[in-house]
Amino acid sequence: MKLTILGCYSATPRTFTNPTSQVLQVRNHLFLIDCGEGTQVQLRKCKIKFSRIKHIFISHLHGDHFFGLPGLISTFRLLGRETEMHIYGPKGIKEAVTLLLKLGDSWTNYPLIFHELNSKESELIFEDEQVSVRTIPLDHRVYTNGFLFEEKPLPRTLDVDATEKLKIDRSQYHKIKNGADGISENGKVISNIALTLDPPEPKSYAFCSDTAYKEAILPLIKNVNTLYHESTFLEKDSGLCQKTKHATAKQAAQIALKASAGNLILGHYSTRYKSIDLFKEEALQVFPHVELADDGKSFDI
Amino acid sequence: MKLTILGCYSATPRTFTNPTSQVLQVRNHLFLIDCGEGTQVQLRKCKIKFSRIKHIFISHLHGDHFFGLPGLISTFRLLGRETEMHIYGPKGIKEAVTLLLKLGDSWTNYPLIFHELNSKESELIFEDEQVSVRTIPLDHRVYTNGFLFEEKPLPRTLDVDATEKLKIDRSQYHKIKNGADGISENGKVISNIALTLDPPEPKSYAFCSDTAYKEAILPLIKNVNTLYHESTFLEKDSGLCQKTKHATAKQAAQIALKASAGNLILGHYSTRYKSIDLFKEEALQVFPHVELADDGKSFDI
Repeated sequence: MKLTILGCYSATPRTFTNPTSQVLQVRNHLFLIDCGEGTQVQLRKCKIKFSRIKHIFISHLHGDHFFGLPGLISTFRLLGRETEMHIYGPKGIKEAVTLLLKLGDSWTNYPLIFHELNSKESELIFEDEQVSVRTIPLDHRVYTNGFLFEEKPLPRTLDVDATEKLKIDRSQYHKIKNGADGISENGKVISNIALTLDPPEPKSYAFCSDTAYKEAILPLIKNVNTLYHESTFLEKDSGLCQKTKHATAKQAAQIALKASAGNLILGHYSTRYKSIDLFKEEALQVFPHVELADDGKSFDI
Repeated sequence: MKLTILGCYSATPRTFTNPTSQVLQVRNHLFLIDCGEGTQVQLRKCKIKFSRIKHIFISHLHGDHFFGLPGLISTFRLLGRETEMHIYGPKGIKEAVTLLLKLGDSWTNYPLIFHELNSKESELIFEDEQVSVRTIPLDHRVYTNGFLFEEKPLPRTLDVDATEKLKIDRSQYHKIKNGADGISENGKVISNIALTLDPPEPKSYAFCSDTAYKEAILPLIKNVNTLYHESTFLEKDSGLCQKTKHATAKQAAQIALKASAGNLILGHYSTRYKSIDLFKEEALQVFPHVELADDGKSFDI
């Protein structure tokens, strides 16, 4: 998995900071997560091919996570897109996008398929042979979901060194890859496990923004490889969290710790602070593996 | 008048070009004209004070003229705006903005007043003691208006050199400014015109985008000081104008010539051309006073 941060600042686009949007590369997918104003320009700056995006996940309908979507949908049309686009987001997203397109008499020339969400329980919203995506119900001022992206296990891979050493004829490779045992030159049966290698561990990524501190998400994100958790505020401003339904860097770290996450990436910073390094310092006091999201930055998961 | 181009390229925001938006300073007003995605960032880059904008004019509801508006309206709220904001635009604009705010549960804390337009005739849509604004019905794929901004004449100004030379007592200055004649030390009546100066000529600016070539607008923009007329294409691609309802640089120049405009500013360029200088070269063959709009550029009118 590779995560590219297109924008990770809260509230409003500014000269050098962008509202929330991320691209997650998982196996053969390029998933777009949230789409604040300016996302399409950030996609260009990060040299991400528009045509590879086929699924867009919107956490909630605040402007800084969503107002770039109508323009992106229009641009796909101008680029001559013909393949389906799937949009996953809160109920109402279809009405909003459809109205804006209708007012501009600008229908898409590609199928635009909305998957509207309104459950308060976690749901499986996407699944194929490679990946599954589940919602993570969050605690924000409006209906909001995070998203858990999980790779599925890959099959064991052929151990070419072993097959050559054990004199397994190449004609058996296909069967062995599919789980069969092998037979050596002298007719001896060799177990599949001796001829194959463990596949890479499936990876997982959880996107949790925007949200107040919410322990109820822990079972959903337990042992996740990388957790992106919003940290709008520092602990000294934790009094703002209740009203705004945001979290502090310390709270994000507490969630990462309790979930036994591999890594924590912080983001959705309020611009009231002098340096985003302050968020990292605060989180590191609770949890050891902390990274700072920043616009244009990529992370291997 | 001072015109600042925030964006002047057609279709879609790109890394270095922005869709349509302009700020027109007229007397004590700062009018925003169109609001493509990214307008609020361009306002910041051009160091324009958000709070001074009280009137926004939207030509039509295509995304590249309008998709920055919901975000800008939200940002005004985050900035603590309390004063009224007036939005002038095609019928439907209120429904669209209201739905987006409602979905985000993000009402404004300042009065947001919509003036929806649907007349096919030119209308007076704003007027105070200083300025008037009229619509210029255009010919585009959806209902579209340009806007004519006209300063009102200022009163004649006191000619201090003349009053001193003619020994007019200062106590009369106020009356003279209001049109009265003066009386000199020796009791002689001096006509007002001899004691005052001509005020500066009232200026006018016409914004015409997006539109196909439309001679019917000529009576409305006759003798305008500065005409901004879209030139999406060069003449060699004029075959595209009919379907897309756009104009060429040559057509824009023909409108400027027939309207006896003082200056022509070109914009709304298609990005298919290597250089925007080509638009100027083409227009100059028809009309002598041609300028090129570009993002961040200002023009004194």
